[in-house]
Amino acid sequence: KVIWTLLVTILGHANSLPVGDDSLCTAEELAKYSIIFTGKWSQIAFPKQYPLYRPPAQWSSLLGVTHSSDYSMWKKNEYASNGVRDFAEKGEAWVLMKEIEEAGEKIQSVHGIFSAPAISSGTGQTSTELEVHPRHPLVSFVVRIVPSPDWFVGIDSLNLCEGDHWMEEVSVDLFPYDAGTDSGFTFSSPNFATIPQDTVTEITCSSPSHPANSFYYPKLKILPPIAQVKMVKLKKNQPGLPPPFLNVPAKSNEIIDSVS
Amino acid sequence: KVIWTLLVTILGHANSLPVGDDSLCTAEELAKYSIIFTGKWSQIAFPKQYPLYRPPAQWSSLLGVTHSSDYSMWKKNEYASNGVRDFAEKGEAWVLMKEIEEAGEKIQSVHGIFSAPAISSGTGQTSTELEVHPRHPLVSFVVRIVPSPDWFVGIDSLNLCEGDHWMEEVSVDLFPYDAGTDSGFTFSSPNFATIPQDTVTEITCSSPSHPANSFYYPKLKILPPIAQVKMVKLKKNQPGLPPPFLNVPAKSNEIIDSVS
Repeated sequence: KVIWTLLVTILGHANSLPVGDDSLCTAEELAKYSIIFTGKWSQIAFPKQYPLYRPPAQWSSLLGVTHSSDYSMWKKNEYASNGVRDFAEKGEAWVLMKEIEEAGEKIQSVHGIFSAPAISSGTGQTSTELEVHPRHPLVSFVVRIVPSPDWFVGIDSLNLCEGDHWMEEVSVDLFPYDAGTDSGFTFSSPNFATIPQDTVTEITCSSPSHPANSFYYPKLKILPPIAQVKMVKLKKNQPGLPPPFLNVPAKSNEIIDSVS
Repeated sequence: KVIWTLLVTILGHANSLPVGDDSLCTAEELAKYSIIFTGKWSQIAFPKQYPLYRPPAQWSSLLGVTHSSDYSMWKKNEYASNGVRDFAEKGEAWVLMKEIEEAGEKIQSVHGIFSAPAISSGTGQTSTELEVHPRHPLVSFVVRIVPSPDWFVGIDSLNLCEGDHWMEEVSVDLFPYDAGTDSGFTFSSPNFATIPQDTVTEITCSSPSHPANSFYYPKLKILPPIAQVKMVKLKKNQPGLPPPFLNVPAKSNEIIDSVS
């Protein structure tokens, strides 16, 4: 048992995103976190085909869920669900909410859902609050890149539990994903369904390897992060049931990542 | 005291939306509600200039707050705050969230904030959960009409407390409002700031009284509701901390209000 715990600890530390295994969470009952999403999609960081009009670069609502390893909202190299397809292509949350609801009813794999308002520019912030449970310590969410064919950023099954306690704070850089359901190459490509559907893939500066791709920057080794998410554990006995946003830092007017 | 209570009861019943007076709530500690927003902005109900492209008719994220009568998110015939202006014009929630946060910190007039994902068509649904408190029994929210100059629907200070108990269920038809900050006349008017700023006004089928106005239907007495909101009290001891959306009815494929 001691050796097993040690092994898990080492493996956990070896991976900056402890993903998936929620079987060993012995933390106290519940934990609440504020979650702050920061868009870093600036014209300076991503000059190629940067969308300026109808619509300009922006972010959809954020839709997330806290869950056990029996549920998966989306996963790299697997096929997107109908709900994730609707959300990634149109920002339409209804089917995805229904899928989550069903998973919660049928296999009790879901603790709760959360959402945060859309951001009307590429570089802004939004936030809300979420709650995790020892049996449901994983966090997943998606935010659609607008405009885009079916591109999104998000997190898949981030475990906020570390053995017997909840993480105090975690920040993750986010990179674009393609939901595999629309074959558009650029931010403003017309709709063109991918048949048969492809799996969810990460979009990098070299893949898809075609000069027309909006994120194709052959001189770069890696793309700068297009967004970032930060989760901060809320104090247990904060007085007066503070609204979810009280821990949010002031908005930064200058969120710039240079690609040079 | 008895007469006063009776008077309040009569006045309360005389008005279908018991607004503002939160001083008499003696209900049990807290109550949770699911809130379901239904868009009814169809081309059949609102044929004039119905937006079909770039962007088609849709709804922004919903941003709401539960509060006491010391706070007001927006009010008919009063000036919109900077936060409501940003939200009504661009769907940008950040400044409004900051205003709510400040009201919560300075005068403890806010219990919590809630948001629901955007809807990618004129006739769809979205939902979330909210919590009210005897000292903060009022609900306000806004949803931006997209596209539009600065038009929105919402609720101002709806009191969910009726004396010693919480209302079980409440439905409200919603009609469009003009935030008074942009002088556009039609859904897709270019930005044109209203200087000096005007107050928040209801848009009706006859006001603004100009044929160019997107909601000007001279043959109608009143507009059909462009949206509806329903709040349903959640059971106190629902097992397993149900996600906010479990009480949401199935999506109706046919939400049609004829103007004829």
